[in-house]
Amino acid sequence: MQAEIITIGDEILIGQIVDTNSAWIAEQLNLNGIRLHQITSISDDEEHIYHTLESIHSKTKLVLMTGGLGPTKDDITKQTLARYFKTELKFHEPTHEHVKQLFARFNIEMTETNRKQAELPENCAILTNNYGTAPGMWFERDGIVYVSMPGVPYEMKKLVENEVMPRVKKHFRTPAIIHRTVLTQGIGESFLADKIEDWENSLGTEGIKLAYLPSPGVVRLRLSIWGDNETDLQQRIDKKIKELQEIIPQYIYGFEKEKFEKIVGKLLRDRKQTLSTAESCTGGRISHLITSVPGSSEYFMGGVVSYSYKSKEDLLEVKKETLEKHGAVSEETVIEMAQGCKKRFNTDYAISVSGIAGPGGGMEGKPVGTVWMALASPNGVKTKKFTFGDNRERNIIRSSLAALNMLRKEILEQD
Amino acid sequence: MQAEIITIGDEILIGQIVDTNSAWIAEQLNLNGIRLHQITSISDDEEHIYHTLESIHSKTKLVLMTGGLGPTKDDITKQTLARYFKTELKFHEPTHEHVKQLFARFNIEMTETNRKQAELPENCAILTNNYGTAPGMWFERDGIVYVSMPGVPYEMKKLVENEVMPRVKKHFRTPAIIHRTVLTQGIGESFLADKIEDWENSLGTEGIKLAYLPSPGVVRLRLSIWGDNETDLQQRIDKKIKELQEIIPQYIYGFEKEKFEKIVGKLLRDRKQTLSTAESCTGGRISHLITSVPGSSEYFMGGVVSYSYKSKEDLLEVKKETLEKHGAVSEETVIEMAQGCKKRFNTDYAISVSGIAGPGGGMEGKPVGTVWMALASPNGVKTKKFTFGDNRERNIIRSSLAALNMLRKEILEQD
Repeated sequence: MQAEIITIGDEILIGQIVDTNSAWIAEQLNLNGIRLHQITSISDDEEHIYHTLESIHSKTKLVLMTGGLGPTKDDITKQTLARYFKTELKFHEPTHEHVKQLFARFNIEMTETNRKQAELPENCAILTNNYGTAPGMWFERDGIVYVSMPGVPYEMKKLVENEVMPRVKKHFRTPAIIHRTVLTQGIGESFLADKIEDWENSLGTEGIKLAYLPSPGVVRLRLSIWGDNETDLQQRIDKKIKELQEIIPQYIYGFEKEKFEKIVGKLLRDRKQTLSTAESCTGGRISHLITSVPGSSEYFMGGVVSYSYKSKEDLLEVKKETLEKHGAVSEETVIEMAQGCKKRFNTDYAISVSGIAGPGGGMEGKPVGTVWMALASPNGVKTKKFTFGDNRERNIIRSSLAALNMLRKEILEQD
Repeated sequence: MQAEIITIGDEILIGQIVDTNSAWIAEQLNLNGIRLHQITSISDDEEHIYHTLESIHSKTKLVLMTGGLGPTKDDITKQTLARYFKTELKFHEPTHEHVKQLFARFNIEMTETNRKQAELPENCAILTNNYGTAPGMWFERDGIVYVSMPGVPYEMKKLVENEVMPRVKKHFRTPAIIHRTVLTQGIGESFLADKIEDWENSLGTEGIKLAYLPSPGVVRLRLSIWGDNETDLQQRIDKKIKELQEIIPQYIYGFEKEKFEKIVGKLLRDRKQTLSTAESCTGGRISHLITSVPGSSEYFMGGVVSYSYKSKEDLLEVKKETLEKHGAVSEETVIEMAQGCKKRFNTDYAISVSGIAGPGGGMEGKPVGTVWMALASPNGVKTKKFTFGDNRERNIIRSSLAALNMLRKEILEQD
């Protein structure tokens, strides 16, 4: 079953708002096994809307439209739909009653403009919008269903959940579809592709499609499979994921939409263990990530952002000689930072990071992007060196993820 | 001048990512006076890409494509473009060199897959992508320009700014257009609108359009003017901005794309003054913002993320009695945090923040969203209390911006 989304409204085309509606609807379609062929964002223009409706793909059976249903003059979706479906706008008494009640509830007087919200195309089914004045409209023609909904995210979502999806499932027979996402850290897209080439080539015979979704420090691998027998599909995809886990166990940190900071937080909470951080080049980014998770105060005791030699000495007990002899960006310094931090906050784990985030500050033997990190744990201290690029923002992001991954692996190893 | 955007990639169609690229490009086009006719999001499918290229509107002169340029098998944009423009992929030595250098810089060996990034359509101009392996491609046919770019947001943005837009401006005749953005903090959109109503009404006679662009903690006001005489346009818009500065001086913290953390950093650097931070509910977000600015180690000495009572006592010398009597989220505690921090890091200024970020943790008299902050300066300590909402992420963002604004105002006051 194939669907299309048409988003109507100038605000997206001038870049004033990001089209989060389409992403949300796309996810709902996907979860319901409906393939989304295309998203088209167009302006509040009658000919443009009309032409877009005429141009839908020959295999499309469901067209979901949002926007252009407000009471003001620039919104002309309703009129255009009436023309497209060769019908007239007619006053719809139940909608009028609903709008009246909405206004009464907020103690606002209804204007003539609001009354127009009840003028609706004659040949569509009206989907009640409990949260706003513009109802949804369900048209059927030549085996294709067209649904028009308001663009206000909250109203649209409720309509999709309560009205549109239940009707769509009843109207169409939809195949089962399963997606799984594997989250990897610490390896670039192309190296990953080389490492899993044989495995990737074997996916085709199982009818599984693979997509690489890279972002700084993380590559997500998405597997998709379609068919009739959901149990069978699930088994086929599970088998392949198990195989992948054996090929690259060290790079996989999670699945689906899990966040790194949440995964690490759960590991700590489950073990009743605690964490502290000593950050130099990441400047508080790691503690910011960790504390973005609700309830993180259970396992995160605090951190030090030591941006000067003096603060490394005073707060983390890094020796003056160590700093003078090896510099702030060195294995020796991060070890003392992690140990000092662990002691200071009295935690099970302490992460320390020191590096040259850039774009300036590189030196002989330590180019911009050089990052040292250490992890003090109940079993001693481990260190790791990275060589990232010269983009400050990316270096901070990648260092933070690498530190969290180092911690994640260590916690699991100590089990 | 009319443009279209084509976004290629399955991840948008299954709702896995939100299409922020298109919103960003749409804004750039709008700022340059180019009308965006349509955004089309399609899958990594050769026929679909081909058909979409064939279906662009008859008035469209510029087609901007993103995505599908990775080295892996699911990316087929390049091959499709070669077919559409009736040409072959050819090995492009400068791109190969560039990719090689990128890999050499990171001390990584190049694979066969990476080598393929240098196979490019013969009849396009290559736009160097300094930040990744897939270059941009500029095609011209029948008076229409087609540009293909990678979908990685920061690579795409750099390409648009440094390569695509300068070429587009040269290639097409675009009218003079000037935008100025005024950045405000500490006042909501509707309150701002009430305060500047008369000024806003006077913009029409000058041919200036105003847009409110709200985001958590900040409202940007964008003024736009079109015409032939750039000097005249500049003068008209400057005059209005001067007027605005007299109406709401306390809320304006900067202009254009200036970042709060950069503005504050410059104030400190110019005065050779230093800063430290003591964060509880913001969890390192403030120090992360400050240290995201290159060169911030000149004025930022460091910070403490005190997520526990004990760390507030040990690292910031907050008295046990103060915490017990008034709690961590109190005026008394933030005062001691700021004073302890200032002393500990020996800085001119110290910011402290303590609050209930949520979603849980509210209590009698201190609902979720209650945030206290203090600023210790050479002239003593000032405090401020805020009551934000119950959204953790927004509370952290808004608290951080409010703290930076408090600092900014204090530095200026001490001049």
